[in-house]
This record gives sequence, C-alpha cells and structure tokens, in this order.
Amino acid sequence: MKIAILGGDGYCGWATALHLSRKGHSVAIVDSFIRREWDKDLDVATLTPIRSLAERAGVWERLSGNRLEVFEGDVTDYGFLSSVFREFQPEALVHFAEQRSAPYSMIDREHAVFTQANNVLGTLNVLFAIKEFQPECHLVKLGTMGEYGTPNIDIEEGYLTIEHNGRKDVLPYPKQAGSFYHLSKVHDSHNMLFACRIWGLRATDLNQGVVYGTVTDETALDEALINRFDYDEVFGTVLNRFCVQAAVGYPLTVYGKGGQTRGYLDIRDTVRCVELACLNPAAPGECRVFNQFTEQFSVLDLARMVQTAGRKVSLKVEIQHLPDPRVEAEQHYYNARHSKLADLGLQPHLLSESLLDSLVNIAMLYRDRIDESVFLPRVNWRKPANRRQQDEKLMLTAGVVQR
Amino acid sequence: MKIAILGGDGYCGWATALHLSRKGHSVAIVDSFIRREWDKDLDVATLTPIRSLAERAGVWERLSGNRLEVFEGDVTDYGFLSSVFREFQPEALVHFAEQRSAPYSMIDREHAVFTQANNVLGTLNVLFAIKEFQPECHLVKLGTMGEYGTPNIDIEEGYLTIEHNGRKDVLPYPKQAGSFYHLSKVHDSHNMLFACRIWGLRATDLNQGVVYGTVTDETALDEALINRFDYDEVFGTVLNRFCVQAAVGYPLTVYGKGGQTRGYLDIRDTVRCVELACLNPAAPGECRVFNQFTEQFSVLDLARMVQTAGRKVSLKVEIQHLPDPRVEAEQHYYNARHSKLADLGLQPHLLSESLLDSLVNIAMLYRDRIDESVFLPRVNWRKPANRRQQDEKLMLTAGVVQR
Repeated sequence: MKIAILGGDGYCGWATALHLSRKGHSVAIVDSFIRREWDKDLDVATLTPIRSLAERAGVWERLSGNRLEVFEGDVTDYGFLSSVFREFQPEALVHFAEQRSAPYSMIDREHAVFTQANNVLGTLNVLFAIKEFQPECHLVKLGTMGEYGTPNIDIEEGYLTIEHNGRKDVLPYPKQAGSFYHLSKVHDSHNMLFACRIWGLRATDLNQGVVYGTVTDETALDEALINRFDYDEVFGTVLNRFCVQAAVGYPLTVYGKGGQTRGYLDIRDTVRCVELACLNPAAPGECRVFNQFTEQFSVLDLARMVQTAGRKVSLKVEIQHLPDPRVEAEQHYYNARHSKLADLGLQPHLLSESLLDSLVNIAMLYRDRIDESVFLPRVNWRKPANRRQQDEKLMLTAGVVQR
Repeated sequence: MKIAILGGDGYCGWATALHLSRKGHSVAIVDSFIRREWDKDLDVATLTPIRSLAERAGVWERLSGNRLEVFEGDVTDYGFLSSVFREFQPEALVHFAEQRSAPYSMIDREHAVFTQANNVLGTLNVLFAIKEFQPECHLVKLGTMGEYGTPNIDIEEGYLTIEHNGRKDVLPYPKQAGSFYHLSKVHDSHNMLFACRIWGLRATDLNQGVVYGTVTDETALDEALINRFDYDEVFGTVLNRFCVQAAVGYPLTVYGKGGQTRGYLDIRDTVRCVELACLNPAAPGECRVFNQFTEQFSVLDLARMVQTAGRKVSLKVEIQHLPDPRVEAEQHYYNARHSKLADLGLQPHLLSESLLDSLVNIAMLYRDRIDESVFLPRVNWRKPANRRQQDEKLMLTAGVVQR
C-alpha cells in the first residue's frame, strides 16, 4: 500500500514510517522539520542523539533495502501538499503533522494561536487535498484521548448513544479538552466528521493516549535509526520524564495529588495500531474513532512503579508533589473503552516491570545528555503569558511552580 | 455600562449598537468594514441603501445626543484589539466580528480556511485580551443554533445531563454543525468554555437562530440609519430572500423538500436578547449558553406564509423546489429549548401576518435595487471548489443547481 506519513520525522511518525516500510508498504515521509526547530527555540534536546532525516533514511535503505521517499514542506502550504498528492498518490495518509504539546500551546497567546492555526488549518488542507486529488485515500489522523477530558461517565470510542426525553440518537461524544492543543484536536475531529459526511471521505480518528518508550523492532536495528526521547516539561511525556529523573536521582515531579488518570501505550503499540487502521480502512463516508491506548494509570501509579524499578538498579527515587501547573481534576473517575483496535488484532505490550527496567536503562545509558534544568514545569495554565526566562528564575528561587 | 460591539457595522451589530446606545449605555463600535468588501467581491449589495459608518453614526449622534465611539481595525490583529481595551476599557464585549455565512465558507478551500482562521483565531484573541486587560469584562459572543445540527433528540441550551452505564454527568451538548462556518462557531464554543474554566472569565454564548427583518425602533428614526437587508444566496437569510423574491414575482427558492426546520427570530428580538445578556452577566468562570430564537419553522412553512402574505398585496407567488445544494436532512425531528432568555424577560415579536406584510412591503419599496441574478444557489456543498462564474452560467442554462 502507498502510505504517506505527514510528520514522519517526529517521535511517533519516525517509528511508524520504519514499521510500515518493513511491512512492505511504499512509504513517503512528509515533514517540515519544524519539530527540530522547536527544540532549539525552547533550548531543549531529545535524550537520544537522533540523526538528520537524510542520514537515518539512508541507513534504513541500506539495512532494509526499502526506500523512504521524502517530501520536505509544510501541510499548511496547500501548493506543497498538492504536489505530494500528485507525485505520490497515497492510498492511505497518516497525519501526525501537528504541534502536539499541551504546555507549548499554553505558553502564551502566540503559541496558542500558532497551535490552533497550524493544526486546524493544516488538517483542513489535508481534507481538501484528499477530496481534490485522491478521494478514495484513507485518512488516518492522530487525535488524542485528551479530547474527552475527564467526564464522570464512561468514555466511549467517539460516539455515544443518548436517550433523552423518550427519544434516542447516536451522537459525537461530548468534548472537554484541557489545553489549547487538545482543543485543536477537538476542532479537527469536528471538521473531519463533516468532511466525511458531505464528501464521502473515509477517515479514522486515532484518539491516542500518552505514549512511552523509544525502542521499536526497527529502530533497534542500528543506533543511527534511534528515535526521539523527550523528557523536558514541554514535549516530554510523563513516564519518559520520570525515568530520566530517576536516572539522575532527581525527585519525580508529580503535579498535584497525582490522581490524574489517563490511557497509556508503548510506542511499539502505536506503530501497530496505525498499521491496523491502514490495513482495515474506514468505509466511504465513515469517520470512525478508535481509542488508542492499552492501559490506564494515574500519574502517582506511574511514579511508584518507576520508584520500584529504580530500586532494583540501586537508584534512590523520591517523589515530589508540585502544585499542579495545569487546571485539571487531581482525583476523578476515569473509565475509557478501548476495544476496537483489540478487535482488529492488537496484541498490547503492557507496562511490565521489565519494560520499566529497560526504560530506566535507556535513561541511564544517555545520562550524560540529561539537562536537569528542563524538568520543572514553567508553563502555568492560569497565566495568559508565561515568560519563560523569568518563570525559570522564579521557580528556581521558590522551589516550586507559581500557582 | 461601557459596551464594545465587535462587528458593530454589520447587520445584527448595527441594530444592536443603536439599541444599546438609546438605552443609555456607552457604546463603542469596533469594525474592519470587511463585510462591505465581501459584497464587492461577490458582486452583490444589500437591498437597503446603507450609509457609511461615519455618516450614520453622525446622524445618530445628532438625533439621540449619544456618541458612538468608533475603532477601525480587525480583531485578528492583537495589537489593534489591545488598544481598544486600553482606550475603551469595556465592561461588556459583544462579539459579532465573524464571517457569518455558511455558503461563503463552502465556496472553496480558501474561503473555508479564511472563515475558520478569521473566526477561531479572532475569538482566541478576544479571550486573551479580556484575560490580559479586563478580566471582569463579560463576553457576549454570537454563536449559532447551527452548532447543534439536527439530532433526533431535544436540543437543550448548551449542556445536556447524560446518564450512561449507571453514572451521570452534565456535559457540553454534542455538536454536529453543517458547514465550515457553523463548525468555526463550534470551535469557538469549545475554546470559550475552556478559557472560562482556566481563567475564570465570564461568558455568554448566544446560539442564535436565523434572523429576519431590518427595521428596529432606532433604525426607523431616519432613513440614514437604515440597516442591511441581504437577500443573495450567500449572505441573505431565507425569509428575507423569500420576501424579495415575492416582490419581483420570482418563485421562492426552496432547497429540497423544505422540511429543514430551524429556530427564527426578529431582529428586534436580537437586539433585546443581547441587551438582556449584558444586563444579567454570567458569573466569573461561567460559560453559559442561551438558545436565541423565538419560533421554529420549516423552510416550506415560511414559503407558504410568504405566499399568503403576497396574495394580500396582489402578488402572485410561486414556490420552486430546487435540488438541495447543501448536505442536510430535508425532513427531520427538531425541538429546541429556548427558555433562558424568556426567563430574563424577553417578550418576543412573533412572525405574525402583519409583520410579513411589512417585510414584503420593504422589499417592494426597494424593488428597483433587486438583482434577480443573485437568488439561485451557486455554492454546492458536495464540491470542494465552486468556481462562481462557471457555476452561474451552468445554472442559468440548466435552470437548477448541479448536484
């Protein structure tokens, strides 16, 4: 199958590109490399020393015999996106090409506006390009479990049967997103559903949980193929950050009580979920939603698991509760359905102790590259402008984030 | 009260500005005049000969003794919006400054992207400006009944109590908007709810139905104060268009079966609803939703009422069913609650036969200005690009819109 991966140089995108390439698909990576620019702007770096796309794509071709076609450009540029469709004619389009950090979108007005403009208008371009150039192409779009928020009822996969005043309908599940980034995905979901309805497009919205891990079967083949491993407060996902903190003896930074419960998955399951979605496309006019995670944990659950794993390799791991810089429930009901990908054949990699050990080991392997100054949260949801330099000084003085 | 009206030169905005000014409020009009540019771009004009804002604001000041402060600029320009807040320091902000036509947003990709960028990013700017400069300011934002779509259950005012698997929560009412314009309002609603939650802003989302009429107590005082009356297929609302069609003996253009049912209200009720919202502000942190309409009608109901009214003034009025250029249910359940504004004291102007007479009379009064070539729908929801010149020729030849 000809599969284009928008954002194929990023964390999930790179792993997915290699996985689909190994499975024999013809893969194109479409990327503007802006993710690498954000690292520079924020003065942070991935724990793992990733190579340029040209270099790692070259290594992959030598190792596997499979070529990754590369298109450099931005999906918000419709002329560029059109040329990708005309040249590559994808049968499936996997869309990771969005700004994906909640704290980044909450830095200030400029970052909020950028995030929503980039994500929502980019996805509008994708929908129009499919309709214009390749109407049978299956859109596999990365959403987020964060679109649902933390309602006091069970979370279903995209749609909810509602009975009200003696009548019944199946309606889009109500959305209560928790950042301007998560909201951008809510907006995308509404736009996608509409485009499928009016134009008969076929789409799968993958509401993904928090991803952890860095190694997949393909990236493990050569160090030059190594994937990103972000641990900073802006782009680092929580379990990755905890492992890095444990490796250098820094207390695990739990926001608030730590009862915040979310869905999680191993990056090896991310790549498999995307493959399953591509292999089993949505029908024309269908906008289906899969909740893409394998297990639920609270933040405090994770911290305690990392503590246990750390002890086994003689690390002394403490847990520090910081005032929550986000506006979110610190204790809440959470029960989210996630059976559709399992029904398609997903065999989950669960977060066992052994996996945690290997995560901590990776953090220890690249210990020299760890910058402790990027651990503490500097973006406060309650403030409309988080001037990062000032905040940093303030927090280093106070030892905690400002409420 | 100091009230700033974003989009105060437009159809609802101008009527609202005069009404609030007459009631003794200190009113500022904030407008970029882009609405007047769209008329030029589409080669259409309001039925009524509206004057420049400078002229009509001057006439109002001479007649009423009340000055309308004018700020010329665009809310997507944050520097400009900031200067409005610093200079005027509004206690309430009425936000009409959005691209408000569904067909306009469906012309092609450029118009869809423009509509969502203009509306969503403009409203983001408004939220940040309130938080930054005037956090107690009450945002009164124009939404649309079209956010809800046509679900098979009763429509509530913004929120719905849902019982599911033995648990219960009050959640945002699920949204199923029917155009990229209506979707932009859905996106706004989600962003507003979030901003109220994290920053304690106070907001009222007025989900307005289809507005009809042009005369209010204030615009009737002098012809120089006359309001817009749009009847073209892009910006004309359905009842206004039917009255103009009746006046020139053109068949009323009903899309499809005409069973499409929506909420409607007189523009004299629009201005009163906004006033009621301003006088009874939301609490800090509250994002409340009012369904702002007074009666439900199907399109065919309206066509038949115009037919009856036309006969009384000796007009021969025919009804023509065109293939529906929109993708929508032509027959459906529709029952939307609208009690919150009534609870605050709204006394509706119902669409009586006498009012219809006056609407038809206005159309006959300005009959010389009617351009029949703008009646027929030229924007087809099913096509991603509606090249208007070509479509026009095509439809004049075929006599109907192309499916």
